[in-house]
Amino acid sequence: MKSDAIAMTPLGGERKQGTVCIFGTGDFGRSLGLRLLQAGYEVVFGSRDPKNNSLVPQGSKVMAHAEAAQMAQVIFMAVHRNHYQFLTSLTSSLEGKVLVDVSNNLKMGQYPQSNAEYLSSLVPGASVVKGFNTVSAWALQSGALDASRQVFVCGDDPKAKQAVVDIAHSLGLTAQDRGSLRAAGELEDIPLQLFPLWRLPLWIAGGLLAAFYFYLVCRDVIYAYVKDGKDISFRMMISLANKVFPIVSLIMLGLCYLPSILAAILQLYHGTKYKRFPDWLDRWMLCRKQLGLVALALAFMHVLYTLVIPIRYYVRYRLSAITISQIRENRTDVFDTTMAWRTDSYYSLGILGFGFYVLLGITSLPSVSNALNWREFRFVQSKLGHVTLLLCTAHTFLYGWDRFLKLSTYKWWTPPGYMLSLVIPCVVLVSKLILILPCFDRTITRIRQGWERPDRGSTRLNSPTQQPLMP
Amino acid sequence: MKSDAIAMTPLGGERKQGTVCIFGTGDFGRSLGLRLLQAGYEVVFGSRDPKNNSLVPQGSKVMAHAEAAQMAQVIFMAVHRNHYQFLTSLTSSLEGKVLVDVSNNLKMGQYPQSNAEYLSSLVPGASVVKGFNTVSAWALQSGALDASRQVFVCGDDPKAKQAVVDIAHSLGLTAQDRGSLRAAGELEDIPLQLFPLWRLPLWIAGGLLAAFYFYLVCRDVIYAYVKDGKDISFRMMISLANKVFPIVSLIMLGLCYLPSILAAILQLYHGTKYKRFPDWLDRWMLCRKQLGLVALALAFMHVLYTLVIPIRYYVRYRLSAITISQIRENRTDVFDTTMAWRTDSYYSLGILGFGFYVLLGITSLPSVSNALNWREFRFVQSKLGHVTLLLCTAHTFLYGWDRFLKLSTYKWWTPPGYMLSLVIPCVVLVSKLILILPCFDRTITRIRQGWERPDRGSTRLNSPTQQPLMP
Amino acid sequence: MKSDAIAMTPLGGERKQGTVCIFGTGDFGRSLGLRLLQAGYEVVFGSRDPKNNSLVPQGSKVMAHAEAAQMAQVIFMAVHRNHYQFLTSLTSSLEGKVLVDVSNNLKMGQYPQSNAEYLSSLVPGASVVKGFNTVSAWALQSGALDASRQVFVCGDDPKAKQAVVDIAHSLGLTAQDRGSLRAAGELEDIPLQLFPLWRLPLWIAGGLLAAFYFYLVCRDVIYAYVKDGKDISFRMMISLANKVFPIVSLIMLGLCYLPSILAAILQLYHGTKYKRFPDWLDRWMLCRKQLGLVALALAFMHVLYTLVIPIRYYVRYRLSAITISQIRENRTDVFDTTMAWRTDSYYSLGILGFGFYVLLGITSLPSVSNALNWREFRFVQSKLGHVTLLLCTAHTFLYGWDRFLKLSTYKWWTPPGYMLSLVIPCVVLVSKLILILPCFDRTITRIRQGWERPDRGSTRLNSPTQQPLMP
Repeated sequence: MKSDAIAMTPLGGERKQGTVCIFGTGDFGRSLGLRLLQAGYEVVFGSRDPKNNSLVPQGSKVMAHAEAAQMAQVIFMAVHRNHYQFLTSLTSSLEGKVLVDVSNNLKMGQYPQSNAEYLSSLVPGASVVKGFNTVSAWALQSGALDASRQVFVCGDDPKAKQAVVDIAHSLGLTAQDRGSLRAAGELEDIPLQLFPLWRLPLWIAGGLLAAFYFYLVCRDVIYAYVKDGKDISFRMMISLANKVFPIVSLIMLGLCYLPSILAAILQLYHGTKYKRFPDWLDRWMLCRKQLGLVALALAFMHVLYTLVIPIRYYVRYRLSAITISQIRENRTDVFDTTMAWRTDSYYSLGILGFGFYVLLGITSLPSVSNALNWREFRFVQSKLGHVTLLLCTAHTFLYGWDRFLKLSTYKWWTPPGYMLSLVIPCVVLVSKLILILPCFDRTITRIRQGWERPDRGSTRLNSPTQQPLMP
Repeated sequence: MKSDAIAMTPLGGERKQGTVCIFGTGDFGRSLGLRLLQAGYEVVFGSRDPKNNSLVPQGSKVMAHAEAAQMAQVIFMAVHRNHYQFLTSLTSSLEGKVLVDVSNNLKMGQYPQSNAEYLSSLVPGASVVKGFNTVSAWALQSGALDASRQVFVCGDDPKAKQAVVDIAHSLGLTAQDRGSLRAAGELEDIPLQLFPLWRLPLWIAGGLLAAFYFYLVCRDVIYAYVKDGKDISFRMMISLANKVFPIVSLIMLGLCYLPSILAAILQLYHGTKYKRFPDWLDRWMLCRKQLGLVALALAFMHVLYTLVIPIRYYVRYRLSAITISQIRENRTDVFDTTMAWRTDSYYSLGILGFGFYVLLGITSLPSVSNALNWREFRFVQSKLGHVTLLLCTAHTFLYGWDRFLKLSTYKWWTPPGYMLSLVIPCVVLVSKLILILPCFDRTITRIRQGWERPDRGSTRLNSPTQQPLMP
Repeated sequence: MKSDAIAMTPLGGERKQGTVCIFGTGDFGRSLGLRLLQAGYEVVFGSRDPKNNSLVPQGSKVMAHAEAAQMAQVIFMAVHRNHYQFLTSLTSSLEGKVLVDVSNNLKMGQYPQSNAEYLSSLVPGASVVKGFNTVSAWALQSGALDASRQVFVCGDDPKAKQAVVDIAHSLGLTAQDRGSLRAAGELEDIPLQLFPLWRLPLWIAGGLLAAFYFYLVCRDVIYAYVKDGKDISFRMMISLANKVFPIVSLIMLGLCYLPSILAAILQLYHGTKYKRFPDWLDRWMLCRKQLGLVALALAFMHVLYTLVIPIRYYVRYRLSAITISQIRENRTDVFDTTMAWRTDSYYSLGILGFGFYVLLGITSLPSVSNALNWREFRFVQSKLGHVTLLLCTAHTFLYGWDRFLKLSTYKWWTPPGYMLSLVIPCVVLVSKLILILPCFDRTITRIRQGWERPDRGSTRLNSPTQQPLMP
C-alpha cells in the first residue's frame, strides 16, 4: 500500500478503540505503542522505572507494571524472555488478562520450551497468545514493507486470540490463526528461518554444478591439453558453463518428478495410502517446487549462455576461419539438409521446453497458484511438468544425435556430461509411462481414493505401527 | 507457508475450541477430523457402524448419527449426495444445527439442483452452508499446498456462515463469502473447472496457428518445390514457426483490444450504457486478459526463435556462402545505410514492443493488479496496451517495408502471412484513433457516467426488454 | 475468481441478510444496490423524487430520504459532496445510523476537509465510515475485475466499521481497516493516484536516458562525422540505445543502494537512530524498490538489444568484410587467447548479474515478498542486491578493459559513457565495504537495536526537535 507512511501521522480521534498495555519500553514496545496510538487506541506502558518516560511516544502513559496491567485487557510483553521472572510477582494483576508474547530468540532451539509456553507456565491465570513476533519494530514504524504484514497468532483461548487478531487488523496487518499454544515454538522459529525449503535444492544444485564442472574440465580442457597440447582453457568461462547449466537443470527437473513416481510405487507395493512414506521421501516431496524453480533458473542461464554464442570472439573467429579455409583450399561445403533438420529440431524442442518451463515457474508464484483450483494446479504441475521433462529430454537426445554410438565420443572411456544427465529423466519418463498404463493407473487411483488392498487392511489393524492418520 | 507440514503434529491443548461433528468416516471426513483435532477442536464422527472406529484419527469419538449430532452445533456432511436420504430420519436431531455441505460431483450439471440446496430441502430445519468443497482431503492432510487454501462458503443464514468461516480460519484457511445458498451450484462447479476462461483463447490460438502454418507451408515450402524444385522443408522447424508465432500473436493482441472498440461503438449507437451487449461480446470481453496472455506467450516464443537464428546451421552456411561468392566473383557489396536504418529500426521497435508486452503481462499477475487502483489499472491495460499494439504493428510494417508494393511478394497471388496479420491491429488502431477524437470521446465519457441520449431514455421506459440493471 | 459474472443473477433467498439504504440513484448507487440485492439484502433507495423509480434495480424500493433512512441501520451516501447540505434537515432520522461515505473527488486536495469528515460534521449524531470509494461502479456491476476488489474503510466507531466490513465481505470484496476517520482524506486520494512512487524513478530514468543519449550522439555519431566525414547515424537505433540502457541501468541500481549507505553514515555520525533523516533521504528510501525495478527493465532492454546484435545487417556486413579483407590481403589473424578469456568473462559476468537482477525482481512481486520473513527479505534485497551490483560493475570494468588507460578513448577529452556509469556503483561498493568492517558494523548494529551514543542521549532530551518517535 502506497500511502501507509503518510498515514503514520499522530492523531487523537474522539472515540478511542480501547486501551492496550505494553510491558517494556524497548524499541519494539515503543514502535508498537506509536502504531496503536495512530490507530486510535489508548496506550499504557508498564515500566520498572515509570518516571523515565522520555522515550515513549507522545500521548501514551507510563506506569508501574501492576498499575498499568489494571488499565487494559490486552497486555503486550515486549520484554526479553530472561526478564519474564518478574511477572511471578504480578500474578494477581494479570489474572484473566490476555498476555501477548511477542518475543523472539537469537537462534533456533535456544530453549527447550517456547517463550510463550514458559510465559504461560509463569502466569497460569492469564490467557497467553503468541503473536506479532514476525513483525519487526522497523516495519511497525515505517509501515510500508511488503515482507512483514503477516501476523501469526496461536493460543489456547479462542477469545484471547480473537482480541489479538482484531488489534492486528486495526493496525492494517493481516493475521493468521496457527492453532493452540503448542505451535508457539514454531512461530518463534519463523523469523529465524532462512529459506529452509531451499537449502536442500540449493545444496544439490551446488554439488552437481561443481561435480560436473570438474568432470567437464577434465574431459574437455585437460584432455585437449594432454592429447594435443592445445590450450583451450578460455572455454571454461562460457562453453563449459553452458554445458554444466543444462545438465544440472535437466537432472534437477528429473529429481523434481522422481519422488511422486517413488511414492506411487510404494503405494502400489503396500496396497494402501495410509502407510507413511519414509522420512527422506517426505522431505524430498516437500521441496519439489524449490527443486523445479532452481532447475528453471539454471535453464534460464543456459538460454542466455546459448544466445550470446554468436557474439563471442571465439565463435566469430572460428566461423571466419572456416570460410577462409574453404576459399584457400578452393573447396565448397555442400549444404546438409539432415544437419539443418537436426539442429533446427534440436533448437525448436529446446525453445518449446523452455517455454513450458517458464509457464511452470509462473504458476508457482503464490498469487497465481492461489487462483487455481486443485484440478487446474495438478494439471499444470503434473501434466505440463511431464511434457516439459519430455521436451527437454528429447532436446538433449537430439543434441547427442549419432554421437551416442561413436567411439570417439567417449574420451578416456568416459561418457560426455549430457549422457549422464539423461539417466534420471529417462527413468522418470519410462516409469511414468508404465504407471499410466490402465492396469497400474486404475489401482493407484483407487488407492488414492482411500481403497486398501484386502490383505493389507487386515494386517494394518493388527499392527499398531501402521495405524492411519496418526503421525 | 513453510512450516505447515511441521505444524501437523498431534496435540491436545487443555482448552478446546469447541466440538465439531462430522458425518461420514471417508477420506475427506477423516482428514478434516485430524485437522480439526490439531486446531484444538473436539471431534465426533457420526457413522452407521460406530463400532468400526479403527480408521478415525486418534482423539476423536465415533457414535451413531443421531447421538453425534447432539454433541455439536456444526455438522460437516462428508457423505456422498446419493446417501443424503438417511438424513430425513434425523430431522429432529438436526433441528437448528449448521449443516456444512462439503460434497462435490463428478461432472458439471450432474443434478438439476445443487447438492446443498437438495440437502436444505431434506432437512429444512437446519441452516445449510455450502463450503470446504474446494479443499481436497490431501491438502487438509498435508497442509502445505498453495492451490487449495481458499474456502468459499455460501448459505442463507449469516450466523451459520460465520461459524463455518471461523472454523476455516482456525484451520489456517482463507474464506470468502459467496452469497446465498443459490450460489451453491456454482461453488460445486469450481473444483470441476479446468481453465474455463482460457479455453476460448487457446482454441483461437490453436486454430490460427494451424491455419497460418498450413498457409505458409503452401506458400513457402511447396511453392519453392513446385516452382524451383528446391527442397527447403527443413525450414518448417524454425523459419516457419518464427513466422506463425508473431502473426498469431499480433492478431490475438488485436483481438484483445477489439471488443472494447465494439462496445464503445455499440454504446455510441444506442446512446446509453444500460442496453446489454450481445452475449458473444460479453464472453469476448471476459477473456481479454487471457487473449492478451496467450499473445504474450506467442511473442515470447517469437523472441526466442528470432534470437537463435544466428546459431542455426542453415544461417551460418548461407552467410559463409555469401562471403565466399563475393570473393570468387571478386565483387564487393556496398554498405547500404538505408538497409541498416531499416533493419535496426525494425528490431528496435520489436524490442520496445516486447518490453511493453512483458510489462502488461506482469501487471496481469493477481498480486500486482491487486496493488493497483482503478485508474492505474486502466492506464496500464488501456494506454500501455494500445502503445504495445502500435509498436508491434509498426514493427510488422517495417518488416514488410517496400515489399507491400512488389508483385513478386504475392506468390500464387496470395499475400504473405504478415500482411494478413496486420488487418485486425490496423482496424483497432484506426477505430481507437477515431474514438478518441473529442466529439466521440466526450459522448462516450458522458454515456459511461450514466448519461443517456434523450430519445433513447423515453423508448427504454416503454420497452420492457431494455430495462436497465435487470439482467 | 472466474465465475463472478455468472453469480450476478438476481435471486431472492427466503432469508434476507437485512436491509440496506442507499441515498442517491446515480450510477454507483444503482450498481451497489443491484449487487446488494444479489447478495440477499433488502435495498431501499432514498431519493428526492421517489416516484421516478424507473432506473433502480428490480426488487428494490424507492422512498423519500427520511422514510428510507428509517428502514435500515446502514446508509450508503452515493451523493456528491456538494449535495450533502440537504442532510442537515434529516439529522433526527440519521441519529445513531451508520453513514457510509463512498464519495470521491475529481482531484487531490480539492477541499481542505475530507468528504467523510465534512459529512460527520454535518450529521454529528451518526457514525460516519469512509469506504467503498476505491471500488468503481463498473467493478460492482461486472464483478470480475482484479484491480478493484479491495475496500478500505476508516471511521471512529469500531462497530460501525465492522458493519461496513461485513457488507463488503458478503459482496465478495476484501476489506482493510485503515484506522480512524482522520484517514478519510487519504482514502479519498487513493483512486486519484497514478503510480505516485514510480514518478521520481521514472523521471530520473528519463532524464538520464536523454542526457546520456545526447552525450553519446555527440561523442560517437557527430565525432565520426566531424573527424572522418563518416555517416554512422544508423547506429542511433541500436548501438547507441544499447549503450544508454546499460549505463542508466547501472547508475539506477547504484542509486537504489546509495540511500541505505547514506542512512548508515548519518546514523553513525549522530550516534542514534532516533534522529529523523532529512526529507529527501526519506523520499529516496521509499522509492528504492521502484528505482531497482526501473533499473531491471533497462537491463532487460540491454539484454535484448545485445542478443539481436548478430542478426543485424550492419554486423553481418562488417564480419563478412573482415573475412574478405583477410583473404584479399592474404593475411591470417591469429587467435588471441587473452581476447577470448576477456570477452567470455565479460559476457559471463553480465549474464550472472542479469540472473541475480531477475531474481531480485521476482522477489519484489507482492505475493513473493509477502511469503518471505524479515530475515529472508533482507538477505535477498541487501546481500543479493549488492552481489548483483558487484557483478554488473565488474561486467562494465571488463568491458572497458585496457581502454581506461588509452588516450584515444577520450575523444574530445570526454570519457566514454560507461566510465561515467561506474562512478556511483563504485562509491556504493567501496562505502559498503568500509561499513561492513567490524568496527563500523558493530556500532551500526548496536545503533539499530536502539543503543544511543551517550553524549547524544543527553543532548536529545534537552532538544525538543530531536524527540524520538514523534513525527
